[in-house]
Amino acid sequence: MEYGARNQIQGIVAEVKKGGIMCEVIVELPGGGVMTSVMTIDSLEDMNLTVGDKVKVVVKAVNVLLVKE
Amino acid sequence: MEYGARNQIQGIVAEVKKGGIMCEVIVELPGGGVMTSVMTIDSLEDMNLTVGDKVKVVVKAVNVLLVKE
Amino acid sequence: MEYGARNQIQGIVAEVKKGGIMCEVIVELPGGGVMTSVMTIDSLEDMNLTVGDKVKVVVKAVNVLLVKE
Amino acid sequence: MEYGARNQIQGIVAEVKKGGIMCEVIVELPGGGVMTSVMTIDSLEDMNLTVGDKVKVVVKAVNVLLVKE
Amino acid sequence: MEYGARNQIQGIVAEVKKGGIMCEVIVELPGGGVMTSVMTIDSLEDMNLTVGDKVKVVVKAVNVLLVKE
Amino acid sequence: MEYGARNQIQGIVAEVKKGGIMCEVIVELPGGGVMTSVMTIDSLEDMNLTVGDKVKVVVKAVNVLLVKE
Repeated sequence: MEYGARNQIQGIVAEVKKGGIMCEVIVELPGGGVMTSVMTIDSLEDMNLTVGDKVKVVVKAVNVLLVKE
Repeated sequence: MEYGARNQIQGIVAEVKKGGIMCEVIVELPGGGVMTSVMTIDSLEDMNLTVGDKVKVVVKAVNVLLVKE
Repeated sequence: MEYGARNQIQGIVAEVKKGGIMCEVIVELPGGGVMTSVMTIDSLEDMNLTVGDKVKVVVKAVNVLLVKE
Repeated sequence: MEYGARNQIQGIVAEVKKGGIMCEVIVELPGGGVMTSVMTIDSLEDMNLTVGDKVKVVVKAVNVLLVKE
Repeated sequence: MEYGARNQIQGIVAEVKKGGIMCEVIVELPGGGVMTSVMTIDSLEDMNLTVGDKVKVVVKAVNVLLVKE
Repeated sequence: MEYGARNQIQGIVAEVKKGGIMCEVIVELPGGGVMTSVMTIDSLEDMNLTVGDKVKVVVKAVNVLLVKE
Protein backbone atom coordinates (compact mmCIF):
# COMPACT_ATOMS: atom_id res chain seq x y z
CA MET A 1 0.00 0.00 0.00
CA GLU A 2 1.29 3.42 -0.96
CA TYR A 3 0.17 6.82 0.34
CA GLY A 4 0.50 10.18 -1.39
CA ALA A 5 1.89 11.78 1.77
CA ARG A 6 5.47 12.46 2.89
CA ASN A 7 4.93 11.61 6.55
CA GLN A 8 4.09 8.03 7.57
CA ILE A 9 4.87 6.63 11.01
CA GLN A 10 3.87 3.30 12.61
CA GLY A 11 2.42 3.40 16.13
CA ILE A 12 0.08 1.79 18.66
CA VAL A 13 -3.21 3.32 19.85
CA ALA A 14 -2.72 4.22 23.51
CA GLU A 15 -5.91 6.11 24.36
CA VAL A 16 -9.24 7.21 22.87
CA LYS A 17 -11.19 10.19 24.28
CA LYS A 18 -14.73 10.70 22.97
CA GLY A 19 -16.70 13.94 22.73
CA GLY A 20 -20.14 14.43 21.16
CA ILE A 21 -19.27 13.64 17.52
CA MET A 22 -15.47 13.95 17.51
CA CYS A 23 -12.81 11.88 19.25
CA GLU A 24 -9.12 12.23 20.01
CA VAL A 25 -6.86 9.23 19.45
CA ILE A 26 -3.40 9.17 21.05
CA VAL A 27 -0.84 6.98 19.29
CA GLU A 28 2.44 5.89 20.88
CA LEU A 29 5.44 5.82 18.56
CA PRO A 30 8.28 3.29 18.80
CA GLY A 31 10.78 5.99 19.82
CA GLY A 32 8.69 6.94 22.86
CA GLY A 33 6.91 10.01 21.44
CA VAL A 34 3.19 10.34 20.73
CA MET A 35 1.08 11.63 17.82
CA THR A 36 -2.55 12.65 18.29
CA SER A 37 -5.33 12.50 15.70
CA VAL A 38 -8.81 14.03 15.85
CA MET A 39 -11.49 12.32 13.76
CA THR A 40 -15.25 11.73 13.89
CA ILE A 41 -16.57 8.99 16.18
CA ASP A 42 -18.28 7.61 13.05
CA SER A 43 -14.84 7.03 11.49
CA LEU A 44 -13.50 5.51 14.71
CA GLU A 45 -16.38 3.04 14.73
CA ASP A 46 -16.11 2.25 11.01
CA MET A 47 -12.42 1.45 11.61
CA ASN A 48 -13.33 -0.51 14.72
CA LEU A 49 -10.33 1.19 16.33
CA THR A 50 -9.41 0.34 19.90
CA VAL A 51 -6.51 0.72 22.32
CA GLY A 52 -3.65 -1.59 21.36
CA ASP A 53 -4.33 -1.49 17.60
CA LYS A 54 -1.37 -0.98 15.28
CA VAL A 55 -1.94 2.06 13.03
CA LYS A 56 -0.11 4.11 10.45
CA VAL A 57 -0.04 7.86 11.19
CA VAL A 58 -0.24 9.76 7.88
CA VAL A 59 0.31 13.53 7.48
CA LYS A 60 0.55 15.44 4.20
CA ALA A 61 3.60 17.76 4.12
CA VAL A 62 1.45 20.84 3.36
CA ASN A 63 -0.11 20.43 6.82
CA VAL A 64 3.23 20.49 8.62
CA LEU A 65 4.25 23.87 10.07
CA LEU A 66 7.87 24.60 10.94
CA VAL A 67 8.75 27.12 13.66
CA LYS A 68 12.20 28.52 14.41
CA GLU A 69 12.09 29.50 18.07
CA MET B 1 5.94 29.66 23.87
CA GLU B 2 2.80 27.60 23.61
CA TYR B 3 1.10 26.22 20.45
CA GLY B 4 -2.55 25.28 20.05
CA ALA B 5 -1.61 21.98 18.42
CA ARG B 6 -1.27 18.47 19.84
CA ASN B 7 1.81 17.48 17.84
CA GLN B 8 5.13 19.24 18.45
CA ILE B 9 8.48 17.64 17.70
CA GLN B 10 12.00 19.11 17.77
CA GLY B 11 14.24 18.46 14.76
CA ILE B 12 17.08 19.69 12.58
CA VAL B 13 16.68 20.86 8.96
CA ALA B 14 18.47 18.29 6.80
CA GLU B 15 17.57 19.38 3.27
CA VAL B 16 15.68 22.07 1.34
CA LYS B 17 14.35 21.46 -2.20
CA LYS B 18 13.04 24.49 -4.08
CA GLY B 19 10.42 24.57 -6.83
CA GLY B 20 8.94 27.65 -8.51
CA ILE B 21 7.10 29.17 -5.52
CA MET B 22 6.95 26.22 -3.10
CA CYS B 23 9.70 24.34 -1.28
CA GLU B 24 10.04 21.08 0.58
CA VAL B 25 11.93 21.05 3.87
CA ILE B 26 13.13 17.73 5.30
CA VAL B 27 13.63 17.68 9.08
CA GLU B 28 15.56 14.98 10.91
CA LEU B 29 14.14 13.91 14.26
CA PRO B 30 16.26 12.85 17.24
CA GLY B 31 14.97 9.26 17.03
CA GLY B 32 16.25 8.90 13.47
CA GLY B 33 12.99 9.49 11.58
CA VAL B 34 12.19 12.46 9.33
CA MET B 35 9.24 14.83 8.93
CA THR B 36 8.71 16.83 5.74
CA SER B 37 7.03 20.22 5.41
CA VAL B 38 5.92 22.02 2.25
CA MET B 39 5.74 25.82 2.46
CA THR B 40 6.18 28.83 0.16
CA ILE B 41 9.73 29.95 -0.68
CA ASP B 42 8.61 33.36 0.61
CA SER B 43 8.08 31.84 4.08
CA LEU B 44 11.38 29.98 3.88
CA GLU B 45 13.19 33.24 3.16
CA ASP B 46 11.29 35.21 5.81
CA MET B 47 12.38 32.55 8.33
CA ASN B 48 15.89 32.62 6.92
CA LEU B 49 15.76 28.82 7.21
CA THR B 50 18.79 26.78 6.24
CA VAL B 51 20.21 23.29 6.62
CA GLY B 52 21.33 22.70 10.20
CA ASP B 53 18.72 24.98 11.82
CA LYS B 54 16.86 23.68 14.86
CA VAL B 55 13.07 23.80 14.24
CA LYS B 56 9.87 22.76 15.93
CA VAL B 57 7.58 20.63 13.74
CA VAL B 58 3.94 21.52 14.56
CA VAL B 59 0.88 19.58 13.30
CA LYS B 60 -2.73 20.10 14.37
CA ALA B 61 -4.42 16.82 15.33
CA VAL B 62 -7.26 17.36 12.81
CA ASN B 63 -4.68 17.04 10.03
CA VAL B 64 -3.45 13.64 11.22
CA LEU B 65 -4.97 10.63 9.45
CA LEU B 66 -4.86 7.18 11.02
CA VAL B 67 -4.90 4.04 8.85
CA LYS B 68 -5.36 0.48 10.06
CA GLU B 69 -3.67 -1.68 7.44
CA MET C 1 10.47 33.46 16.52
CA GLU C 2 9.75 32.67 12.90
CA TYR C 3 6.84 30.64 11.45
CA GLY C 4 6.74 28.82 8.14
CA ALA C 5 3.34 30.30 7.31
CA ARG C 6 2.36 33.32 5.22
CA ASN C 7 -0.46 34.51 7.49
CA GLN C 8 0.34 35.79 10.99
CA ILE C 9 -1.89 38.22 12.86
CA GLN C 10 -1.75 39.46 16.47
CA GLY C 11 -4.97 39.40 18.49
CA ILE C 12 -6.58 39.08 21.93
CA VAL C 13 -8.65 36.05 23.05
CA ALA C 14 -12.23 37.30 23.44
CA GLU C 15 -14.18 34.11 24.13
CA VAL C 16 -13.72 30.36 24.62
CA LYS C 17 -16.57 27.88 23.99
CA LYS C 18 -16.00 24.30 25.12
CA GLY C 19 -17.57 21.13 23.70
CA GLY C 20 -16.76 17.54 24.69
CA ILE C 21 -13.13 17.34 23.49
CA MET C 22 -12.92 20.35 21.13
CA CYS C 23 -13.17 24.07 21.81
CA GLU C 24 -13.69 27.22 19.78
CA VAL C 25 -11.53 30.25 20.54
CA ILE C 26 -12.58 33.66 19.25
CA VAL C 27 -9.76 36.18 18.80
CA GLU C 28 -10.31 39.91 18.36
CA LEU C 29 -8.00 41.62 15.89
CA PRO C 30 -6.73 45.20 16.28
CA GLY C 31 -8.71 46.38 13.25
CA GLY C 32 -11.99 45.27 14.80
CA GLY C 33 -12.43 41.93 12.99
CA VAL C 34 -12.29 38.47 14.57
CA MET C 35 -10.60 35.17 13.72
CA THR C 36 -11.83 31.87 15.16
CA SER C 37 -9.75 28.76 15.88
CA VAL C 38 -10.94 25.25 16.73
CA MET C 39 -8.52 23.10 18.76
CA THR C 40 -8.68 20.31 21.34
CA ILE C 41 -9.44 21.24 24.95
CA ASP C 42 -6.20 19.39 25.78
CA SER C 43 -4.26 21.96 23.74
CA LEU C 44 -6.20 24.84 25.29
CA GLU C 45 -5.24 23.60 28.76
CA ASP C 46 -1.61 22.92 27.82
CA MET C 47 -1.41 26.53 26.60
CA ASN C 48 -3.22 27.70 29.71
CA LEU C 49 -5.18 29.96 27.34
CA THR C 50 -7.80 32.31 28.75
CA VAL C 51 -9.82 35.36 27.74
CA GLY C 52 -7.59 38.43 27.51
CA ASP C 53 -4.45 36.56 26.44
CA LYS C 54 -2.43 37.99 23.57
CA VAL C 55 -2.02 35.38 20.78
CA LYS C 56 -0.62 35.07 17.31
CA VAL C 57 -3.08 33.69 14.75
CA VAL C 58 -1.15 31.54 12.23
CA VAL C 59 -2.60 30.14 8.97
CA LYS C 60 -0.68 28.37 6.21
CA ALA C 61 -1.47 29.82 2.76
CA VAL C 62 -2.52 26.40 1.40
CA ASN C 63 -5.45 26.47 3.84
CA VAL C 64 -6.76 29.80 2.58
CA LEU C 65 -9.58 29.61 0.01
CA LEU C 66 -10.38 32.56 -2.24
CA VAL C 67 -13.89 33.06 -3.62
CA LYS C 68 -14.93 35.53 -6.32
CA GLU C 69 -18.59 36.22 -5.67
CA MET D 1 -24.24 33.04 -0.25
CA GLU D 2 -23.27 31.31 2.98
CA TYR D 3 -20.03 29.47 3.79
CA GLY D 4 -19.52 26.74 6.38
CA ALA D 5 -16.41 28.47 7.73
CA ARG D 6 -15.91 30.81 10.68
CA ASN D 7 -13.42 33.12 8.98
CA GLN D 8 -14.51 35.26 6.03
CA ILE D 9 -12.78 38.51 5.07
CA GLN D 10 -13.24 40.76 2.03
CA GLY D 11 -10.12 41.90 0.17
CA ILE D 12 -8.56 42.94 -3.14
CA VAL D 13 -6.04 40.84 -5.11
CA ALA D 14 -2.75 42.74 -4.98
CA GLU D 15 -0.30 40.31 -6.57
CA VAL D 16 -0.10 36.88 -8.22
CA LYS D 17 3.14 34.86 -8.32
CA LYS D 18 3.17 31.76 -10.53
CA GLY D 19 5.29 28.63 -10.13
CA GLY D 20 5.09 25.45 -12.20
CA ILE D 21 1.60 24.25 -11.22
CA MET D 22 0.93 26.29 -8.05
CA CYS D 23 0.52 30.02 -7.54
CA GLU D 24 0.53 32.42 -4.60
CA VAL D 25 -2.13 35.13 -4.44
CA ILE D 26 -1.66 38.09 -2.11
CA VAL D 27 -4.87 39.82 -0.99
CA GLU D 28 -4.96 43.26 0.61
CA LEU D 29 -7.45 43.69 3.42
CA PRO D 30 -9.33 46.94 4.13
CA GLY D 31 -7.49 47.44 7.44
CA GLY D 32 -4.11 47.45 5.68
CA GLY D 33 -3.06 43.84 6.39
CA VAL D 34 -2.63 41.09 3.81
CA MET D 35 -3.71 37.45 3.54
CA THR D 36 -1.97 35.00 1.18
CA SER D 37 -3.50 31.97 -0.52
CA VAL D 38 -1.74 29.16 -2.40
CA MET D 39 -3.80 27.36 -5.07
CA THR D 40 -3.24 25.59 -8.38
CA ILE D 41 -2.75 27.71 -11.50
CA ASP D 42 -5.64 25.69 -12.97
CA SER D 43 -7.94 27.12 -10.27
CA LEU D 44 -6.58 30.62 -10.79
CA GLU D 45 -7.40 30.38 -14.50
CA ASP D 46 -10.83 28.83 -13.94
CA MET D 47 -11.62 31.78 -11.64
CA ASN D 48 -10.13 34.17 -14.17
CA LEU D 49 -8.52 35.87 -11.16
CA THR D 50 -6.40 38.97 -11.71
CA VAL D 51 -4.89 41.84 -9.74
CA GLY D 52 -7.62 44.26 -8.63
CA ASP D 53 -10.36 41.62 -8.27
CA LYS D 54 -12.52 41.71 -5.16
CA VAL D 55 -12.39 38.34 -3.35
CA LYS D 56 -13.62 36.74 -0.17
CA VAL D 57 -10.89 35.07 1.90
CA VAL D 58 -12.34 31.94 3.56
CA VAL D 59 -10.58 29.87 6.26
CA LYS D 60 -12.08 27.02 8.27
CA ALA D 61 -11.45 27.43 12.02
CA VAL D 62 -9.80 23.98 12.29
CA ASN D 63 -6.99 25.31 10.08
CA VAL D 64 -6.25 28.27 12.35
CA LEU D 65 -3.37 27.77 14.80
CA LEU D 66 -3.03 29.96 17.88
CA VAL D 67 0.38 30.61 19.44
CA LYS D 68 1.05 32.25 22.81
CA GLU D 69 4.51 33.75 22.53
CA MET E 1 -19.31 32.61 -8.27
CA GLU E 2 -15.86 31.12 -8.58
CA TYR E 3 -13.87 29.16 -5.98
CA GLY E 4 -10.09 28.78 -5.77
CA ALA E 5 -10.42 25.01 -5.29
CA ARG E 6 -10.17 22.11 -7.75
CA ASN E 7 -12.97 20.03 -6.25
CA GLN E 8 -16.56 21.29 -6.35
CA ILE E 9 -19.57 18.98 -6.25
CA GLN E 10 -23.30 19.78 -5.94
CA GLY E 11 -25.32 17.84 -3.37
CA ILE E 12 -28.28 17.82 -0.98
CA VAL E 13 -27.95 17.86 2.84
CA ALA E 14 -29.22 14.49 4.04
CA GLU E 15 -28.42 14.54 7.76
CA VAL E 16 -26.96 16.79 10.49
CA LYS E 17 -25.47 15.33 13.68
CA LYS E 18 -24.64 17.80 16.46
CA GLY E 19 -21.99 17.49 19.18
CA GLY E 20 -21.02 20.10 21.77
CA ILE E 21 -19.56 22.78 19.45
CA MET E 22 -18.97 20.79 16.23
CA CYS E 23 -21.41 19.12 13.85
CA GLU E 24 -21.22 16.58 11.05
CA VAL E 25 -23.18 17.25 7.86
CA ILE E 26 -23.83 14.41 5.43
CA VAL E 27 -24.43 15.46 1.82
CA GLU E 28 -25.92 13.16 -0.82
CA LEU E 29 -24.42 13.45 -4.29
CA PRO E 30 -26.39 13.00 -7.53
CA GLY E 31 -24.50 9.80 -8.40
CA GLY E 32 -25.60 8.14 -5.16
CA GLY E 33 -22.41 8.69 -3.10
CA VAL E 34 -22.10 10.89 -0.02
CA MET E 35 -19.60 13.50 1.18
CA THR E 36 -19.33 14.46 4.86
CA SER E 37 -18.25 17.82 6.28
CA VAL E 38 -17.38 18.71 9.88
CA MET E 39 -17.86 22.37 10.87
CA THR E 40 -18.76 24.37 13.98
CA ILE E 41 -22.42 24.55 15.03
CA ASP E 42 -21.94 28.34 14.89
CA SER E 43 -21.26 28.08 11.15
CA LEU E 44 -24.20 25.71 10.65
CA GLU E 45 -26.50 28.23 12.31
CA ASP E 46 -25.03 31.22 10.46
CA MET E 47 -25.71 29.35 7.19
CA ASN E 48 -29.15 28.35 8.47
CA LEU E 49 -28.37 24.92 7.02
CA THR E 50 -31.00 22.19 7.23
CA VAL E 51 -31.79 18.80 5.72
CA GLY E 52 -32.90 19.16 2.10
CA ASP E 53 -30.76 22.24 1.35
CA LYS E 54 -28.79 22.29 -1.88
CA VAL E 55 -25.07 22.87 -1.17
CA LYS E 56 -21.77 22.97 -3.00
CA VAL E 57 -19.09 20.70 -1.53
CA VAL E 58 -15.69 22.41 -1.92
CA VAL E 59 -12.31 20.74 -1.25
CA LYS E 60 -8.88 22.19 -2.00
CA ALA E 61 -6.66 19.71 -3.88
CA VAL E 62 -3.89 19.94 -1.25
CA ASN E 63 -6.30 18.31 1.22
CA VAL E 64 -6.95 15.30 -1.00
CA LEU E 65 -4.87 12.20 -0.21
CA LEU E 66 -4.44 9.43 -2.79
CA VAL E 67 -3.79 5.83 -1.70
CA LYS E 68 -2.76 2.95 -3.95
CA GLU E 69 -4.00 -0.17 -2.18
CA MET F 1 -7.67 -1.53 5.29
CA GLU F 2 -9.50 1.13 7.23
CA TYR F 3 -9.02 4.92 7.11
CA GLY F 4 -9.89 7.45 9.80
CA ALA F 5 -11.62 9.69 7.27
CA ARG F 6 -15.28 10.05 6.30
CA ASN F 7 -14.71 10.48 2.57
CA GLN F 8 -13.30 7.61 0.51
CA ILE F 9 -13.91 7.24 -3.21
CA GLN F 10 -12.40 4.80 -5.74
CA GLY F 11 -11.09 6.23 -9.01
CA ILE F 12 -8.59 5.91 -11.86
CA VAL F 13 -5.63 8.29 -12.41
CA ALA F 14 -6.38 10.18 -15.62
CA GLU F 15 -3.60 12.76 -15.76
CA VAL F 16 -0.47 13.91 -13.91
CA LYS F 17 0.89 17.47 -14.25
CA LYS F 18 4.31 18.15 -12.77
CA GLY F 19 5.70 21.44 -11.46
CA GLY F 20 9.04 22.02 -9.73
CA ILE F 21 8.46 20.00 -6.54
CA MET F 22 4.65 19.61 -6.54
CA CYS F 23 2.34 17.75 -8.91
CA GLU F 24 -1.37 17.69 -9.63
CA VAL F 25 -3.07 14.33 -10.09
CA ILE F 26 -6.50 14.17 -11.73
CA VAL F 27 -8.60 11.12 -10.82
CA GLU F 28 -11.69 10.03 -12.76
CA LEU F 29 -14.56 8.72 -10.65
CA PRO F 30 -16.93 5.95 -11.77
CA GLY F 31 -19.88 8.36 -11.94
CA GLY F 32 -18.07 10.57 -14.48
CA GLY F 33 -16.81 13.28 -12.11
CA VAL F 34 -13.18 14.01 -11.25
CA MET F 35 -11.26 14.67 -8.04
CA THR F 36 -7.87 16.42 -8.06
CA SER F 37 -5.04 15.96 -5.55
CA VAL F 38 -1.88 18.03 -5.12
CA MET F 39 1.13 16.24 -3.60
CA THR F 40 4.92 16.38 -3.81
CA ILE F 41 6.63 14.77 -6.80
CA ASP F 42 8.62 12.81 -4.19
CA SER F 43 5.39 11.18 -2.99
CA LEU F 44 4.25 10.53 -6.57
CA GLU F 45 7.51 8.72 -7.28
CA ASP F 46 7.48 6.79 -3.99
CA MET F 47 3.98 5.57 -4.92
CA ASN F 48 5.13 4.88 -8.48
CA LEU F 49 1.82 6.44 -9.53
CA THR F 50 0.99 6.59 -13.24
CA VAL F 51 -2.01 7.19 -15.49
CA GLY F 52 -4.41 4.25 -15.37
CA ASP F 53 -3.65 3.29 -11.74
CA LYS F 54 -6.59 2.54 -9.46
CA VAL F 55 -6.49 4.78 -6.36
CA LYS F 56 -8.57 5.57 -3.33
CA VAL F 57 -9.31 9.28 -2.87
CA VAL F 58 -9.34 10.07 0.89
CA VAL F 59 -10.53 13.38 2.43
CA LYS F 60 -11.00 14.10 6.12
CA ALA F 61 -14.40 15.71 6.83
CA VAL F 62 -12.79 18.72 8.56
CA ASN F 63 -11.28 19.68 5.20
CA VAL F 64 -14.64 19.73 3.41
CA LEU F 65 -16.27 23.16 3.07
CA LEU F 66 -19.99 23.50 2.36
CA VAL F 67 -21.37 26.54 0.54
CA LYS F 68 -25.04 27.48 0.18
CA GLU F 69 -25.20 29.58 -2.98
